[in-house]
Amino acid sequence: MPTVGVIGLGSMGMGIALSALRAGLPVRGFDVAPDRVEAFVAAGGQGGSLDAAGDLDIAVLVTVTAAQARDVLFGAGGLAAALPAGALVIACPTMSPDDARDLAVRAGEAGLLYLDAPISGGAAKATEGALTVMASGAGAAFAAAEPVLDAVAETVFRLGDAPGAAAAMKVVNQHLAGIHIASAAEAVVFGITQGIDPAKTLEVISRCAGTSWMFENRVPHIVAGDYAPLSAVDIFVKDLGIVLEAAGAAGFSPALAETAAAAFRAAQAEGLGREDDAAVAKVFARQAGVALPGAG
Amino acid sequence: MPTVGVIGLGSMGMGIALSALRAGLPVRGFDVAPDRVEAFVAAGGQGGSLDAAGDLDIAVLVTVTAAQARDVLFGAGGLAAALPAGALVIACPTMSPDDARDLAVRAGEAGLLYLDAPISGGAAKATEGALTVMASGAGAAFAAAEPVLDAVAETVFRLGDAPGAAAAMKVVNQHLAGIHIASAAEAVVFGITQGIDPAKTLEVISRCAGTSWMFENRVPHIVAGDYAPLSAVDIFVKDLGIVLEAAGAAGFSPALAETAAAAFRAAQAEGLGREDDAAVAKVFARQAGVALPGAG
Repeated sequence: MPTVGVIGLGSMGMGIALSALRAGLPVRGFDVAPDRVEAFVAAGGQGGSLDAAGDLDIAVLVTVTAAQARDVLFGAGGLAAALPAGALVIACPTMSPDDARDLAVRAGEAGLLYLDAPISGGAAKATEGALTVMASGAGAAFAAAEPVLDAVAETVFRLGDAPGAAAAMKVVNQHLAGIHIASAAEAVVFGITQGIDPAKTLEVISRCAGTSWMFENRVPHIVAGDYAPLSAVDIFVKDLGIVLEAAGAAGFSPALAETAAAAFRAAQAEGLGREDDAAVAKVFARQAGVALPGAG
Repeated sequence: MPTVGVIGLGSMGMGIALSALRAGLPVRGFDVAPDRVEAFVAAGGQGGSLDAAGDLDIAVLVTVTAAQARDVLFGAGGLAAALPAGALVIACPTMSPDDARDLAVRAGEAGLLYLDAPISGGAAKATEGALTVMASGAGAAFAAAEPVLDAVAETVFRLGDAPGAAAAMKVVNQHLAGIHIASAAEAVVFGITQGIDPAKTLEVISRCAGTSWMFENRVPHIVAGDYAPLSAVDIFVKDLGIVLEAAGAAGFSPALAETAAAAFRAAQAEGLGREDDAAVAKVFARQAGVALPGAG
C-alpha cells in the first residue's frame, strides 16, 4: 500500500483525498489553510507538513496553479528534496503544456517519477471517486499511479508517454468549457432581450441542438440567481489565459476564446471574481440593460 | 383528415412531407425545383402548384428564409389568396421574431390561422418524424396543427399564444448552435497546434465538460475530412445574421455571436459557403498554419 500525500485540500483536492482514503490507502493531507487539514483529519485522514514527507510514495498535487505546484515541489523546504528517490508526483492543476514539461523534467532530475494528470468533473465527482483524468507520462509513472487512479477516477485517458500531452488536452477542454459558459450566459441574456424567461430557455434549449454540458450545468445557477462559487470567475480568467498563452506561443489567435476571456476579465474587473463563473451573465445583462433572476 | 401541402422540399421539408405521408395524411409537395417534386411523387406523394391550392387545409412552409415564406404567401400568385378561409399556415423557417409577428398579422388579415413553428433536429429526425418543434400561436392554430405535429414531431414546446415567441426561442438556439460549431472547430485547430490529433480530441472531449451537442455532431466531419453539407456554412451566416439583427434591435451586442458570425462570413468569403458548416475549421486552420485531416 503506497502512502499518499494530497497537497492542496480545496474542493477537488479534498475529494481526491477522501476517495483515496475510502479506497483503503494511507493518506496525508497538506494545505496552507489549517482548517482544511483539520477537516480532513476529522474525516479520518492524517495531517502533515511538506518538510516531513520522507515517507510518501505518491504526492498528488491539487494546487490551483502551476506556479503553486512548482513552489510546492521546488521552493524552499519543498517536496522534491523531502520525497524519497523514485517517489511519484501526480500533477493535477490545469497548466500549459510547457509548464507540465518543465515540471516533469525537473522532477526527473530530482529522481522522481512524474505523471501529467489534469482532472475534469468537478467537486462532486472528486468526492465520489468518479473523476475523468487525462494522463500522460512514462509507463513506470502510470504503474505507480494505479492505486490512486483506481481510487479517484471513473475514466482515465492514457495520452501517451510524454508529459505535456495531457496538459494540452485539458487546456483544449478549458477552451471549450470557458467559451460554453460564456455562450450560455450570453444566450440567456439574449433570450431575455427577446422576451424569453431564462427558465424557459433552460427547459427548451437543454433538449435542442444548442445545448452543451456547461449550458445544462451552469444555466440553473443563473435561473436560481445563485452565484455561490462551485467554480469561480477567477478560475476561467486563469484557464483561458493559459489557453491564449499556449495558442499564442503556437502562432494561433483563437478569436472565440479571446472573446470569452474578455468577458470573464470584465466580470473580474467588476468585482465578481470570487462568484460562480456563471456570474459572467451579469456582465452581459448590464450591457443589454436587462435584469437577471434574483437581481435587484 | 386535413389535406396538407408542404412548400419547400429541401432536406427538412422532404422529411416533413414523408413523415406526414407515413402518418396517413394526404400530402401535396411544392418546390421550385421540379426534381424535388418528382422525388416526392416517386415516394408516394402528390405534386402541386401554388396557385391551385384551394383544397389545402394546412400549408407547411419549409423555405430557407422568411423572405421566401413571405413571397410564397403574399407574392404574385401566392398561397394566401389561394387557400380557403380558415386554413392553417405552419411556418418553419428560422426567422426573426419581428418577421414571425409580421407574417402572422398578414395571415390573419387574409383569414388564415398561423402557427409560428420553427424546427430543430436535422434532416434525419425530420425523416423519422422525430423533430423538435418550438411553437407559438392561437389555440385554434394549435388544434388545427395537431395531425401534422403528431406526424413530424417527437417533442413540441408550446411557447404561448403569441407568434414570435417560438421564433425567438429558435433564434436563441441558433445563437448557441452557431457559436458551438465555431468553438468546436476552433478547439480542434487549437489542439492541432498543441500536437493533439483531432480524433483524440473528439474521443476525449466528448466525455468531458467541454462537450456540446454540436461538438459531438460536427467534429466527426472534421476528423473524416468530409464537408459534404448536412447544414451549410451559408445557413449559419444567415442564422447568426438574424441573431445579430434581433439582438441589435434590442440594444444588445452579443460578442460571442459576433465573433462566430465573423468566422462563418470568412468561410463564405473563402468560397466555402456551400460546404458543411464544420468547414469553418478551414478558416481557423489557415490562420493557425496547420493541416486538417484530409487536407492537401
